[in-house]
Amino acid sequence: MKLKNDILLRTIAGEEVERPPVWLMRQAGRILPQYRKVRSSLSGFRELVNTPDLAAEVTIQPVDELGVDAAIIFSDILVIPEAMGLPYELIEKKGPYFPRTIENANDVDLLRSGLDAAENLEYVYNAIKTTSANLNGRVPLIGFCGAPWTILSYMIEGSGSKTFSKARRFLHQEPELAHKLLEKITKTSIAYLKQKIQSGCHLVQIFDSWAGILSPTSYKEFGLPYIAKICESISEAPKIVFAKGAWFAMKEFGRLNCEVVGLDWNMSPEWSRNQINSTQTFQGNFDPAMLYASHDKIQSETVSMIKRFGGNHIANLGHGVYPDTPLENVKVFVNTVKNFRYSKLETSSGHHSDLKISNL
Amino acid sequence: MKLKNDILLRTIAGEEVERPPVWLMRQAGRILPQYRKVRSSLSGFRELVNTPDLAAEVTIQPVDELGVDAAIIFSDILVIPEAMGLPYELIEKKGPYFPRTIENANDVDLLRSGLDAAENLEYVYNAIKTTSANLNGRVPLIGFCGAPWTILSYMIEGSGSKTFSKARRFLHQEPELAHKLLEKITKTSIAYLKQKIQSGCHLVQIFDSWAGILSPTSYKEFGLPYIAKICESISEAPKIVFAKGAWFAMKEFGRLNCEVVGLDWNMSPEWSRNQINSTQTFQGNFDPAMLYASHDKIQSETVSMIKRFGGNHIANLGHGVYPDTPLENVKVFVNTVKNFRYSKLETSSGHHSDLKISNL
Repeated sequence: MKLKNDILLRTIAGEEVERPPVWLMRQAGRILPQYRKVRSSLSGFRELVNTPDLAAEVTIQPVDELGVDAAIIFSDILVIPEAMGLPYELIEKKGPYFPRTIENANDVDLLRSGLDAAENLEYVYNAIKTTSANLNGRVPLIGFCGAPWTILSYMIEGSGSKTFSKARRFLHQEPELAHKLLEKITKTSIAYLKQKIQSGCHLVQIFDSWAGILSPTSYKEFGLPYIAKICESISEAPKIVFAKGAWFAMKEFGRLNCEVVGLDWNMSPEWSRNQINSTQTFQGNFDPAMLYASHDKIQSETVSMIKRFGGNHIANLGHGVYPDTPLENVKVFVNTVKNFRYSKLETSSGHHSDLKISNL
Repeated sequence: MKLKNDILLRTIAGEEVERPPVWLMRQAGRILPQYRKVRSSLSGFRELVNTPDLAAEVTIQPVDELGVDAAIIFSDILVIPEAMGLPYELIEKKGPYFPRTIENANDVDLLRSGLDAAENLEYVYNAIKTTSANLNGRVPLIGFCGAPWTILSYMIEGSGSKTFSKARRFLHQEPELAHKLLEKITKTSIAYLKQKIQSGCHLVQIFDSWAGILSPTSYKEFGLPYIAKICESISEAPKIVFAKGAWFAMKEFGRLNCEVVGLDWNMSPEWSRNQINSTQTFQGNFDPAMLYASHDKIQSETVSMIKRFGGNHIANLGHGVYPDTPLENVKVFVNTVKNFRYSKLETSSGHHSDLKISNL
């Protein structure tokens, strides 16, 4: 099906576009009254994730309400451990909780992996198919998974944590077992992403939420190689890699076989361009807390961000939108991007495409 | 009183030393059986902080047990908000909690500041005096405070938080009021540090624990200038600035009037030296999770860290030691540093002092 709005895909393909495409991490969520209404009628978050019709409904809500240039399938990165054999719960105001965690080699051996695991995620593929049918080509649909290190950290830790010191201890005490587990997660993630694309996703994002708590050395051993493997294995659609806090590996992200590098709000556009010697597109990196500011301030900061990236850029936040962000403020951000025109960047020195080239 | 072990101060003064000095953030704490014994006999953490004799006792424990080259006064960064008029509690397994928080201009106006606030911290000065008397010059004593941004974030947020989004919202919604509050915290911190030095501290450390959640722009507006002001105002003793996660401001730390820059475990020695164009000493930055590894691994990683810094370095972790770290592993770290000799770094190309110079 031909997309009616393909500005996101054209940007990633390196075509000249009139403005940056825009979407928000966690756009399908508590910021929308429609979402809160659906959510309050349910027993829990899991019911929403596991029911394809409902997941599809909330996935499309931000396209209707905010006019963003992409939808991202409503789901959770923790469906992967569950599909591998480690079920999780979501405890209100506390976050994820695993009744069983990985403690030894036997636990790792017992986990399913690859297609064997990914075939347990039929409900996600069905949600994508339903979303895809209902979106009817309005905007592209993004699929996602957690990066293997982030998934491992939950499987070991059993819940969220400020330091993930249990997971990090595991890396240092059982490095071989850690690699074995990371390998199994990687295989599952590849099979999963391929199925997601086949079910209707136009591109995929890999979230490495806990990248920033590893040392550069540890990340190069336990984080990056598995992301690289996923990127090498997925040729069916463009890949976005977003590793929060992993500024120290930015040069390596520039060498990944991925089309887009996501930036958190610590990584300035200028610094990031300087690190990366490629034509990769950047995604990000508006400070989510700046969406609490006045409309005028949001507008001027958004324009400033777009200009600093100077093209080859997908406008987004530097992390998920905070649930208590006023909806009107989110709209100011989205509309400011949508009303921006790169042609306004033309100066005596030429068109903005020069600006792009000079930054690459 | 002349110090028996002054390797820390000699290192900071730029003198040639035989090995790096070593101490650990949170060395006075749960890793020590002696500490757990004292702590279990009390009603809570606050009793320990508020009772000079007990604070002095646990401050000295790691000097006895671990043989570290410095003591750091047992206290809490949140004594400052309390002295300013905002009392806090410490809830077991939950962390700090403020029954009242700062919500408006009137709340800020009502806060005490400077000497007026700092004179409420007599119990800290007494703890320092007692520690100093009991240490009897064995090692230098470090005093500390939180950086103004980190203190503000607790005063607004009222507790710990994953995102401190309430505090960051305050910066963007009430920037003038935020500056007014930061100014009051800064004045109090300066008066407090001066009193600490006068009471017996040989040097002071400023902890900016939440530096890394601000964007570079916000940090340059709300974080750095107040740290700079504290550094400019304290000439009585050397200053260590440790801003966790603020890699993006490393060049600016190089321009601060502070003798030591603390590094977290994301900031590699090579990268950090490259950013900073000064003779400042680095402190850090062993990955606290690496202390869970085998003794052999801890030993080789410690030696590797020392060599990578190549001198002008205070060995420490990149953050506080995790409370469940095995005591024996901490000892391996400390003893590996104490047994190291820079002279072993001599090669055909010359003495390690060349190595230092080539890195600066």
